Amino acid sequence: MMRTHSAGTLRADNAGQTVTLAGWVARRRDHGGVIFIDLRDASGSAQVVFREGEMAEQAHRLRSEFVVQVTGEVTRRPAGNENPDLPTGEIEVLATALTVLSESAPLPFPLDEHTEIGEEIRLRHRYLDLRRSGPAKALRLRSEANRIARNVLHERDFVEVETPTLTRSTPEGARDFLVPARLRPGSWYALPQSPQLFKQLLMVAGTERYYQIARCYRDEDFRADRQPEFTQLDIEMSFVSQEDVIELAEEIMAALWRDLAGYEIPRPIPRMTYAEAMARYGTDKPDLRFGLELTELTDYFAETSFRVFQAPYVGAVVMPGGAAQSRRQFDAWQEWARQRGARGLAYVTVGEEGELGGPVAKNLSDSERDGLAKAVGAEPGDAVFFAAGHPADARALLGAARVEIARRAGLIDDDAWAFVWVVDAPMFERVRDDNGNEIGWTSVHHPFTAPNDEWIERFEEAPDQALAHAYDIVVNGNEIGGGSIRIHRSDVQQRVFDLLGMDEAEQREKFGFLLDAFQYGPPPHGGIAFGWDRITMLLAGADSLREVIAFPKTGGGFDPLTQAPAPITLEQRREAGVDAKPPKPQPPAAEKPAEQS
Amino acid sequence: MMRTHSAGTLRADNAGQTVTLAGWVARRRDHGGVIFIDLRDASGSAQVVFREGEMAEQAHRLRSEFVVQVTGEVTRRPAGNENPDLPTGEIEVLATALTVLSESAPLPFPLDEHTEIGEEIRLRHRYLDLRRSGPAKALRLRSEANRIARNVLHERDFVEVETPTLTRSTPEGARDFLVPARLRPGSWYALPQSPQLFKQLLMVAGTERYYQIARCYRDEDFRADRQPEFTQLDIEMSFVSQEDVIELAEEIMAALWRDLAGYEIPRPIPRMTYAEAMARYGTDKPDLRFGLELTELTDYFAETSFRVFQAPYVGAVVMPGGAAQSRRQFDAWQEWARQRGARGLAYVTVGEEGELGGPVAKNLSDSERDGLAKAVGAEPGDAVFFAAGHPADARALLGAARVEIARRAGLIDDDAWAFVWVVDAPMFERVRDDNGNEIGWTSVHHPFTAPNDEWIERFEEAPDQALAHAYDIVVNGNEIGGGSIRIHRSDVQQRVFDLLGMDEAEQREKFGFLLDAFQYGPPPHGGIAFGWDRITMLLAGADSLREVIAFPKTGGGFDPLTQAPAPITLEQRREAGVDAKPPKPQPPAAEKPAEQS
Repeated sequence: MMRTHSAGTLRADNAGQTVTLAGWVARRRDHGGVIFIDLRDASGSAQVVFREGEMAEQAHRLRSEFVVQVTGEVTRRPAGNENPDLPTGEIEVLATALTVLSESAPLPFPLDEHTEIGEEIRLRHRYLDLRRSGPAKALRLRSEANRIARNVLHERDFVEVETPTLTRSTPEGARDFLVPARLRPGSWYALPQSPQLFKQLLMVAGTERYYQIARCYRDEDFRADRQPEFTQLDIEMSFVSQEDVIELAEEIMAALWRDLAGYEIPRPIPRMTYAEAMARYGTDKPDLRFGLELTELTDYFAETSFRVFQAPYVGAVVMPGGAAQSRRQFDAWQEWARQRGARGLAYVTVGEEGELGGPVAKNLSDSERDGLAKAVGAEPGDAVFFAAGHPADARALLGAARVEIARRAGLIDDDAWAFVWVVDAPMFERVRDDNGNEIGWTSVHHPFTAPNDEWIERFEEAPDQALAHAYDIVVNGNEIGGGSIRIHRSDVQQRVFDLLGMDEAEQREKFGFLLDAFQYGPPPHGGIAFGWDRITMLLAGADSLREVIAFPKTGGGFDPLTQAPAPITLEQRREAGVDAKPPKPQPPAAEKPAEQS
Repeated sequence: MMRTHSAGTLRADNAGQTVTLAGWVARRRDHGGVIFIDLRDASGSAQVVFREGEMAEQAHRLRSEFVVQVTGEVTRRPAGNENPDLPTGEIEVLATALTVLSESAPLPFPLDEHTEIGEEIRLRHRYLDLRRSGPAKALRLRSEANRIARNVLHERDFVEVETPTLTRSTPEGARDFLVPARLRPGSWYALPQSPQLFKQLLMVAGTERYYQIARCYRDEDFRADRQPEFTQLDIEMSFVSQEDVIELAEEIMAALWRDLAGYEIPRPIPRMTYAEAMARYGTDKPDLRFGLELTELTDYFAETSFRVFQAPYVGAVVMPGGAAQSRRQFDAWQEWARQRGARGLAYVTVGEEGELGGPVAKNLSDSERDGLAKAVGAEPGDAVFFAAGHPADARALLGAARVEIARRAGLIDDDAWAFVWVVDAPMFERVRDDNGNEIGWTSVHHPFTAPNDEWIERFEEAPDQALAHAYDIVVNGNEIGGGSIRIHRSDVQQRVFDLLGMDEAEQREKFGFLLDAFQYGPPPHGGIAFGWDRITMLLAGADSLREVIAFPKTGGGFDPLTQAPAPITLEQRREAGVDAKPPKPQPPAAEKPAEQS
């Protein structure tokens, strides 16, 4: 090693020792003829002093981010010069030898913590951005999170298994990224959206307890905070019930939050059904750091003459103190709602004497007006926002308004952690075409999720009511993990595929190997996958997934650092077999079991 | 959990307890009216007894690989019925309740250890193959290997960082797998051949100690034991010398072999220069479990009139006892050599009195014959094989013959472990065209490897002699890891690119971001990458990489299980933008450093 000590570890105890440090010049200050630098390495930083004379002359050429090796004696700083804010603030190193290991050109942006820098330039020079203490800490925290989770899993005899990433395209939900197979021209691999099928095959294989911190891929239209490749902590277990998976998941979450956020999660984590979450919070990932529950008013307005409220669902959410908002602020709410695809956001204000104001109030009957504040739990000075229409749409709007109200009204405690399990999700939801016509069903979770015991033999009777053995873990309004007990019977799996509109040929073509595997003693099994980028983002207190990814991509999947993706050469295209004629597809035939031996 | 105990953990101490087990019917035996099954789960197996009467009647439908849940009382087996070969051999479980959790069709192949099964059918039903104890153990060993290596690295403050796998194509050595970028039509990502550039950028970023168990991709023509995706334990460190990396690598290897093979690696592991390895063993990955060193005879035959030996290099290797081989066996050696691209394998036999036999002997002069056995260290009864020609080709042939001799002569101790570091590799080797004309240079390791101190300022003067700061770790003839101190000066990096025939535009286009990064205080750094599939294969005592990969591919990169790769739909092709016109390439300009602030 080119050093004897890490700079950040030096303390008063080291005084008198001769040490060699290696690291970066974080800051240089000249005081008369004496030169001070803060020498930074991965452990922290220490002050190095180059005394007047030869040492100062040598140090004169040092600039920010030069890499140096310094030998010198650790001494206590002169009384009054200590820096109590710095772990190494009691000492300094009197340099007796200096080697410049490399130089630095002037930086494209300063590395101190206090400067706001555009993300594009930070990511283009991510190797400089990561020298800043915030980004560097985020990477280290992520590494620790991996270790903590693995320790919990190791103690419980989980086996870490790597599953393939060059696999078969089974478009389900999102688009697959595709990879031409040069050795089978015209055929393509797909990058997996998750290891779902492979981990289920591992259960059929008797692995019983599997985990993997797995890279996954989804070719989606990038929203602000999407990455084309992302990571999940992926877990699957055999011979378990939902309770077993939930218990393990809580153990992992508890260890992470205890060690990395200093927070002891109260356990068991409360549970809420999907239906309840939708009714009370308008979302399947409720933020429970604050109240502001939705009130359903469908019955309340059952006889209303106000056309807008003659709808299959009417609901409301209260904004405490919201009556004091200006007309302009209420107009901004309308704009906010329109940006979410709604026609607007009806509201009333509650006056000091309980009288209702705002444009909606005059459309209501006297009795509707009189009981309204009480019905929604509004106090004088509050505003009440309404949504009416299709329950799913109206609740989604109110749910979003609820979060926005909390934000604007300062009701969110940034230091709070509110965990909740959302359970009993529906199996299916309607697929509608562009005209709103119902054209089929899609899975709410994924098509491998088991119906619960009540529905397993008859989900076809009422697909919209059938419930799944599924569970999502939510914290502060973020879904950080989701799982289910899986189907392990090929007849049930085929009935689900049938309902989703897949004919038998398509089932064989896409999932024949899974249906085959289920012929040979599949164990009951279930699991969960945690969104690892999101969890580490929350633990790091970061506000973007990009902060916890070493080399993230920006919108459109572009990497400003390497400029990927990039055009390929004609030679590469030819070699990869991109333009080869595909072989005639031959869906594998159904497995013919061998004779019993 | 559907069980109270794991079957394999039951011991005599459990006698009297009522337990519930869940697992697979490994074997069923009927003795009169009593039915015995071996119930297998991930922990092992236990014998379950279904007594005559109702229980036996229920158990009658059980077949191999049915999944069952059994409740019963643990009892000691009757005296004389214990099975000392089985950890649970002292007990059995008297079943009082049986639930069949799933059934199994007759199996395509038996799951016992003793049947040889074709690999194609095993891999097609990998979920059954992995129920066999050998394959299941290999996966578990691999999981343990991960944990052991990570523990060593964690104790030394390494940070685990995930690097991108959708990245930029920088064809170097092998071909890249390509991924069309739908959101940038005409542009493509590449899957990384290794995280090399990203880990070097992390060093520039000040991470100092990085590791990752990383998935890597190479689109090569598959030889028997190649996988298109493979795994390496990837490590990089700053402020280190070669000694530091070697010391860490030995610590990791020692922990792995100690815990997983019960073998204490003698340390320090011996080192050998690349030149010595080539001269003595004809390969840069010598198998040191046996001797049979090559003897160079170029000087010995300097004056020979035998045309075949009038060559820039003549060498030999001795086969102990080889003189007794039949003419047919010697012919087989010729065929063996021709399959390796050689014209044949010249040989002489040494008779009981030291007289030489075989077709070559008569072409030699008396004095050449007289001294030959002594020159090569052959004894009466041995055979001596020769190769003559270009030193690299001739040594490679002799090196391969040496291993083949050891195999045929039974000189290899299968229980031995012979580790060696091969150091001081050359920086460059000649590239020749199909006619053997020298048309340039290529890197022996990779173009980011640093020349050693002696050569760093002048490797252009004699590229064929310049040595690198590179080190490979070899065990039993397998290269299991390789690394180097890296170039961290952009001027040196550019000079290496120059020598490799890359013009400045190409350097900027492919590696501009690395050259830019080196402008800003890059630390000296180096690292190593371990071939994780190969290491776990050796530790598992397996003879194919496929045995330690959960879902491996066969020749041609085909997965018999999922039938990947597969044709894609026209819709997928259109959406992926495969046929979009690429944007005009614009190589990024050289970084213009900002003004010093």
